Amino acid sequence: MSTTFYPEITKATHSRFLIYRVLGYLLLMLAGIKMIAVLVAVFYHESIFWVFLSSAVFTAILGYALVYKGRFASDMKSRQLFLLTTLSWLSLCLFAAIPFWLIVPDCSFTDAWFETVSAVTTTGSTVFVGLDHMPKGVLFWRAVLNWIGGIGIIVMAIAVLPALKIGGMRLFKTENSDTSDKILPRSSSLSTAIALVYLVLSVCTMLSYYVAGMTGFDAITHGMSTVATGGFANYDASFGQYKSQPHIYWIGSFFMLAAALPFVLFVSMVKGHRQALWRDPQVRAFLSIVLIATLLLTVYQISQNDRNWFDALTHSLFNVVSIITTCGYASEDYTLWGNLAIMLFFYLTFAGACSGSTSGGLKIFRIQLAALLLVKQMKLLIHPKAVWVQKYGHKTVDDQLLGTVLAFCFVYFATIAFLAMALSFYDLDLVTAVTGAATAVANVGPGLGSIIGPAGNFSSLPDGAKWWLSLGMLMGRLEILTLLILFTPSYWRY
Amino acid sequence: MSTTFYPEITKATHSRFLIYRVLGYLLLMLAGIKMIAVLVAVFYHESIFWVFLSSAVFTAILGYALVYKGRFASDMKSRQLFLLTTLSWLSLCLFAAIPFWLIVPDCSFTDAWFETVSAVTTTGSTVFVGLDHMPKGVLFWRAVLNWIGGIGIIVMAIAVLPALKIGGMRLFKTENSDTSDKILPRSSSLSTAIALVYLVLSVCTMLSYYVAGMTGFDAITHGMSTVATGGFANYDASFGQYKSQPHIYWIGSFFMLAAALPFVLFVSMVKGHRQALWRDPQVRAFLSIVLIATLLLTVYQISQNDRNWFDALTHSLFNVVSIITTCGYASEDYTLWGNLAIMLFFYLTFAGACSGSTSGGLKIFRIQLAALLLVKQMKLLIHPKAVWVQKYGHKTVDDQLLGTVLAFCFVYFATIAFLAMALSFYDLDLVTAVTGAATAVANVGPGLGSIIGPAGNFSSLPDGAKWWLSLGMLMGRLEILTLLILFTPSYWRY
Ligand SMILES: [K+]
Ligand SMILES: [K+]
Repeated sequence: MSTTFYPEITKATHSRFLIYRVLGYLLLMLAGIKMIAVLVAVFYHESIFWVFLSSAVFTAILGYALVYKGRFASDMKSRQLFLLTTLSWLSLCLFAAIPFWLIVPDCSFTDAWFETVSAVTTTGSTVFVGLDHMPKGVLFWRAVLNWIGGIGIIVMAIAVLPALKIGGMRLFKTENSDTSDKILPRSSSLSTAIALVYLVLSVCTMLSYYVAGMTGFDAITHGMSTVATGGFANYDASFGQYKSQPHIYWIGSFFMLAAALPFVLFVSMVKGHRQALWRDPQVRAFLSIVLIATLLLTVYQISQNDRNWFDALTHSLFNVVSIITTCGYASEDYTLWGNLAIMLFFYLTFAGACSGSTSGGLKIFRIQLAALLLVKQMKLLIHPKAVWVQKYGHKTVDDQLLGTVLAFCFVYFATIAFLAMALSFYDLDLVTAVTGAATAVANVGPGLGSIIGPAGNFSSLPDGAKWWLSLGMLMGRLEILTLLILFTPSYWRY
Repeated sequence: MSTTFYPEITKATHSRFLIYRVLGYLLLMLAGIKMIAVLVAVFYHESIFWVFLSSAVFTAILGYALVYKGRFASDMKSRQLFLLTTLSWLSLCLFAAIPFWLIVPDCSFTDAWFETVSAVTTTGSTVFVGLDHMPKGVLFWRAVLNWIGGIGIIVMAIAVLPALKIGGMRLFKTENSDTSDKILPRSSSLSTAIALVYLVLSVCTMLSYYVAGMTGFDAITHGMSTVATGGFANYDASFGQYKSQPHIYWIGSFFMLAAALPFVLFVSMVKGHRQALWRDPQVRAFLSIVLIATLLLTVYQISQNDRNWFDALTHSLFNVVSIITTCGYASEDYTLWGNLAIMLFFYLTFAGACSGSTSGGLKIFRIQLAALLLVKQMKLLIHPKAVWVQKYGHKTVDDQLLGTVLAFCFVYFATIAFLAMALSFYDLDLVTAVTGAATAVANVGPGLGSIIGPAGNFSSLPDGAKWWLSLGMLMGRLEILTLLILFTPSYWRY
C-alpha cells in the first residue's frame, strides 16, 4: 500500500522516526529551492548568492541526517499528524529565515522570523522597507516562500486536515479518502493532480503578468505570490506600483479569485465535470459576496469620492478580491475611501475564501454552516418536535459536523480576541490590535489604521508584538486546533 | 389552573385576544406609573405634571379598551409568546415615549423614541444633554422606565424565554416549569418571589445611596437604574458627579454586581440554600472575570498613570462592574487610561453578566458552554471514538442544548456585525460603528471612541443611526430570536 511512497521500507520501527524522515525530506526540498535562489542571485550578479548557497548546503546536510535517522520508519497514527504538521511548518520557517537574517541590513532575528512566517503562511505582512531596492535574490526568496507555502496549504487541506477532522473539513473528504487509521498514502493521486493545477495556474499567471507589461522578474515573483494568495509584492507601494496599467489589476483579480477556489473542483472540471465549479454552494456564495462588495464599493466611490466608474470598479474589485482571498495586495490606500469602505474591508478580513484553496481565514463554508444551524434552530423554535435534515449542496450535514464547525468558529474568534488583547499590552490602539490579530490569524496581510493599514508596514511594531503576530499567523495556517491540541495534556498521554 | 390569574374567564375565545388583554394590563400599569411621575412633578412644583397626567389618562383609556376587548380570552400557545413578548416591549416603548417628546425642548420623535427604548431595554445610552438642569419629572421618568424594564427582563428570563427555548435558557428551567403547551400560569410563585427580591434590592440600594450622601431624589432614581442595570444617571458626567465621594462607587459596584447575579439564586438562598450563589458555575466565572479585570486595570493604572492605589482600585472596579453588568455608568473617561484599558472595556461590552439577572449581553454561561463545546471537540480530535458527557454544574448538557447556545452566539455577533455595517452607511467611523452596535445589542450604554465613548453622548448621531441603534437595543433585549422569528414566513403559517 505504501510501496509507491517508501519503496525502501523493510521493517517497521517506532512511528516517531517517520516524523524525522518527513521533516528531512522537507528540508531537502527547501535546500533545493535555496539552490534556485542561488541561481537567481548569480543571474543578477548579486554577491549574496553565497548566503543562499551555504545555507542550502547546511539545510541539505541536516535534512539528509533526518532522513537517514528515519529510514526504517513505517506508517504513523493519525494523531501524530498534529505534531508532524506543526513541526513541518515550524522547521520550514526556521530554516527559511536564515537568508533574511544574514542578508538584509538591520534585520534582527525577530524581523527575519516574522517575515519568514508571514511568507510561508502566505500572510504577506512585511517588516521590510525599501523593497524597491532590495536584492533580487531576497525578493525571489520572499515570493518562492509564499509559493511553497501555498502548495503546502492545499496539500494540508486535502490530505491532512480531513483526516484530523478539524473544523468541518470532513465535509470535503474525497472519494479517495479511506477511513483507516493509516494516513500518509491517502489521496496521493489527488495531491499530484492538485499540485499540477497549482503549477499550471502559476505559469498562466506569470505569463499573463508578463504579457500585461511586468518585467520578467516581477511577473514570476508576483505570479507566485498571487497564486499562493500570499501577497508579497516587490514594491513598498505593493500593486500601487501599477497604477498606470489598470489591466494588471484585472489580471491580478482574476488569478487571485482562481487561487481562492477549491482546487479539487478544478481537477473535477478537467475530468469532465464542467459544471463542478458553478454547482458548488461555497463557490456561489463566495463569488456573490465578491460581486456585492465590489458593486457596493464602486457605487460608494462614484457617489462619495466622485471617481470615474472604471477606476472605481477596477480598484474596488482588485482590493475586495485581494482581501477576501487573503492575498493582501493593495492597489492604493482604500482606507481613504471612507468609513463604509473601512468597515467592509474589516469584515472581509475575517471571512476568507473557499476551503481547499490557498486562502486563509474562516472560510465561506463555515459561515454557511453556521447560518444553517441558525435556520435549523429557528425552525425548531417554531416547530419544537419536528426533525430537520440539514443539507449543504448534496451532502447531509449531521449535528456532529456542525459542532465541529462551530467549535472552530468559536476558537477562531477567541484566538483573534486573545491575540488582540496580547497586542494591546504593547500599547497598540484598538484598531491596530484587533485588525492586526485578525489579519495575522486569517493570513491576510494588511490590517487597518495608520500603522499596519494598506499604506503602512509592520516594521515599527515592538518586537514582542511581532512574535505574537507570528504565532497568530502560524495558528491561523494550522487551523488553530492542530497547534492548540499539542498543548493539551491528554494529547501526550498515549 | 389559571383561576388565580384570570378569575373572570368564563369561556375560551381565539387566543389572539389574550394578547390584547396582556397588552392592556401593561398599559394600565404604565398609566399607574405615569401617575407616580405626576406626583413627583407636583412635589417639585414642575408644570410638566399635566403632560404626565394627560398621557396617563390616555394610556389608561387605551389599556382598558384592550383589556375589555380580550376579556373572554383563554390561554395561548407558546408560539404566540414570541409575538406577545415583542409587542409588549414595543407598546411599552411607544406609550412611554410620549412624555419625553412633549416635555423636553428640541426633542424630536426620533430622540424621544431612542431615549425611551434605551430606558426600557435598560441600555442607558442617552441623547439628552443638560441632564443636570432637566426637570425632576423627566429624570424620574427615565429612571423608572429603567426600573420597570429591569423587572420585565427578569420575568421574561424566568417565565418566557425558557418556554421559548431560546439560546440555551432551557438550562435554567426551574422545577416549577411544566412541559405542557400552556404557558402563562407557569412559575407564577417564582415570579412573585423574584419581584420581591428585586423590590428589596432596590430599596436597599436607595437607602445605601442616601446614607452615603446622595440627595433623596438621586438616591431613589439612581437606586432604580442601578438595580435595573439600566445606567441612566441624573448628570451629564454620569457618576463622575461623585468623584469626591469614592464610597458611593463602592456601594454602586456592590449593588450592580448583586443585580447582575441570577435572581433565582437569591430566592434559593432565602429558602435556606445558603451556598446556592457560590456553588453556581456561572456566578463563579462571572466574579472571577470581574476580579481579574479589576486587578489588571488597577495595576495598569498604578504603573502607567502613576495613580494612587485606592483611586486606581475604586475606579477600575466601578467601571469594570458597570460595563460587564451592562449597567453603563461611568465614573470618569476610562478611555484615557490607555490602550489596554480600551481593549478590555471593548471585550467587557460584549460579555454581559449572569442569566436571569437584569443584565444584557451574551451572558457568561453561553461563553462557558461554547468553551465546553471546544473542549469536547478537542477531546474528540484526540480520541475520535470516545463518547463524552458534558456537565455544566450538576446538569448534563446535551448536543441539542449546545446547538441552541451556539446558534445564539452566532446570531448575537451577526446582529452586531450587521448593525455596525448599517451604522457605517451613516459615515460613522469603525470604532463608533462597532462599539455602538455592540453597546446597543448588549444593552450596555456607552461605546468607545470620541463620539459615543463614556465621556460622549448619542445626541450628535444622525437620525437614521438612532433608529438602527433603537432596533439593536430592542433586539438585544428580546434575545434577538424572539424578534427575528416574527420575520420568518413559517412563523405565520399556522
Ligand atoms: K495573504
Ligand atoms: K445598561
